[in-house]
Amino acid sequence: MSVTHPAGFVAAGAAIGLKASGNKDFALVVNQGPTYDSASVFTSNRCKANPVLWSEQVVKDGVVRAVVLNSGGANCYTGPEGFQTTHQVAEKVGELVGIAAGDVVVCSTGLIGLVNDRQTLLDGVGTLHAQLSAEGGNDAAEAIMTTDTVAKQVVIEGPDGAGWSIGGMAKGAGMLAPALATMLVVITTDAVVPAADLDAALRAATRVSFDRLDSDGCQSTNDTVTLMASGASGVTPSLADFTAALTEVCRSLALQLLADAEGADHEIAITTLNAASEDDAVEVGRSVARSNLFKAAVFGKDPNWGRVLASVGTTQAAFDPADLDVAMNDVWVCRNSTPAEDPSLVDLSGRKVTVTIDLKAGDARATVWTNDLTHAYVHENSAYSS
Amino acid sequence: MSVTHPAGFVAAGAAIGLKASGNKDFALVVNQGPTYDSASVFTSNRCKANPVLWSEQVVKDGVVRAVVLNSGGANCYTGPEGFQTTHQVAEKVGELVGIAAGDVVVCSTGLIGLVNDRQTLLDGVGTLHAQLSAEGGNDAAEAIMTTDTVAKQVVIEGPDGAGWSIGGMAKGAGMLAPALATMLVVITTDAVVPAADLDAALRAATRVSFDRLDSDGCQSTNDTVTLMASGASGVTPSLADFTAALTEVCRSLALQLLADAEGADHEIAITTLNAASEDDAVEVGRSVARSNLFKAAVFGKDPNWGRVLASVGTTQAAFDPADLDVAMNDVWVCRNSTPAEDPSLVDLSGRKVTVTIDLKAGDARATVWTNDLTHAYVHENSAYSS
Repeated sequence: MSVTHPAGFVAAGAAIGLKASGNKDFALVVNQGPTYDSASVFTSNRCKANPVLWSEQVVKDGVVRAVVLNSGGANCYTGPEGFQTTHQVAEKVGELVGIAAGDVVVCSTGLIGLVNDRQTLLDGVGTLHAQLSAEGGNDAAEAIMTTDTVAKQVVIEGPDGAGWSIGGMAKGAGMLAPALATMLVVITTDAVVPAADLDAALRAATRVSFDRLDSDGCQSTNDTVTLMASGASGVTPSLADFTAALTEVCRSLALQLLADAEGADHEIAITTLNAASEDDAVEVGRSVARSNLFKAAVFGKDPNWGRVLASVGTTQAAFDPADLDVAMNDVWVCRNSTPAEDPSLVDLSGRKVTVTIDLKAGDARATVWTNDLTHAYVHENSAYSS
Repeated sequence: MSVTHPAGFVAAGAAIGLKASGNKDFALVVNQGPTYDSASVFTSNRCKANPVLWSEQVVKDGVVRAVVLNSGGANCYTGPEGFQTTHQVAEKVGELVGIAAGDVVVCSTGLIGLVNDRQTLLDGVGTLHAQLSAEGGNDAAEAIMTTDTVAKQVVIEGPDGAGWSIGGMAKGAGMLAPALATMLVVITTDAVVPAADLDAALRAATRVSFDRLDSDGCQSTNDTVTLMASGASGVTPSLADFTAALTEVCRSLALQLLADAEGADHEIAITTLNAASEDDAVEVGRSVARSNLFKAAVFGKDPNWGRVLASVGTTQAAFDPADLDVAMNDVWVCRNSTPAEDPSLVDLSGRKVTVTIDLKAGDARATVWTNDLTHAYVHENSAYSS
């Protein structure tokens, strides 16, 4: 049910012919109110896709009443014609739903440089509108999949029978900074939360979830996360309660993306301890997450901690290069930047791997998630557009 | 002949048992003068190997009389014991050659965290010393190979029978900033060039050669480039002539490293045109060189220019995101950030690939070299230490 679990939302997902496979490829989520508050975050890539250029304008007033999403084409680097397509799709949604086009967020994912047929999309809006229902969440979640092997959905109830909930769906295996593939996320809630609070909560939640997922260091042109609040529960939660639940939603979706990352054999959680600042901890974790040498070693079940230290050494974080500790799966293979416990004690046969780096420079910490570098990754990404 | 082509140098390379394969693994290059001027550059990684920590002190006075290099173990993150090994090897070289240990640069390459047997190295110094000869360049170049499939050597004569030359040898497939594997380079010349001029020339030459080679975005802990001038020709070239020849030496060695990079199928030259500054051009080129998605696409012979633009968009360089041009192998597949010539005209079946990015923001330019991301890369680097 995901995005249609909270009261006040209807959704649909359909196959309109964008994907050669004939699978579902077009989705619509509509907020029926009574409130229409929203918050969104977008890719930080400067080369943005047309739907992002459009949607960045839409969200500025804090009101979003619908999100329309297509897979099968990113509508990125397609020029003014591509922007016009996005605009007309929003107009069509507005016309059929009875809202302003300026309240419609548009998301696209698929191959860059590919222009989808405009009429197919416009006709598809009619198809989706006819199918909108309070049971449409699953169909919508399936329709935004590209290389995803499973649909990603989550529902979190407010604490102690509070009477409100948050639902979410996601596609891709990436994040708002780097991304393996475009990440699109729609989150809904029936709590009553003003737009400014939604924005604060969403930034807090994404900072420790999607922003810390770094599957392959690449950054998408289309990433979008949109959160809509219908207020249909009539309940106004505390900002703390809402932020906590929203963080749980984002974290669940982020870890679902990690688990389904293209071609990955391992899910790697890199935790940096005792950093001088949280920023330092994230920088160190990200440097390891982006080391192809380290990621290939994990694929090969090789506890090559030297490649961890070599990555840490490329950062500007505060630490003494001669006094670093590193553990893999809780075996401290390196103490004081010298060999310690026997690396052969590290069993990398499982899918989940932990790397722990002790900087001994403060008391901040952070976890960054990544995947290993595999033959399947190379295969999938060498054959994607051909 | 490489490093022993210029007059005033002797060298040796021998198998002393560091490599399980029994191949040559220890090399020595000695400057017999009459001058001993030198310049060096080292990895910018903050986690440096013991030989780098030692050699950074050695080079400070501008005098280097010998370089001793071992493969089969990086002596990195091996603690005070490892540093002591480096120190004693330098002492032994000094004792046998009759020079100060403080004039001996030490280089090591191989697995991080591996401590080589000290006595094996000390005995090996004796073996090398006994074999030193003016014909030893080839042996030395072979002894520093690790995953290299061929020895890298170059000789450039000064212009128009000037009577001086420069020789060089290299191992690895990396650079002073990022590195696929440790890069060790020894360059010799019989020109008369004071240390300050050697330093200026070496920094100018490496800036446009090794520093622009970015095979896999990783950064080694051991990278070292040492240039020694014997003055044995008696000729003092102009700094411009010397810098030009030295740049040719560095460029040749860099391209030999690129051609032999671990598991690579393609050599990719990324040229950024009409940048606001050379720094911008390098930043843009490097962003593309570090895109796993783009590199996997090249492996798959897929001219996926969208992944080029997506990488350019992650930089802070000056450009208009809506007005970028991209060519692959001189086919302009993207104009004004929209599809242009048919990508199927781009033939990626050959080993060499060019990517050209026109930023339309100034008149600076730079070329960055990289390799594709292949199954063989993943294989080689997932099995390296096991």
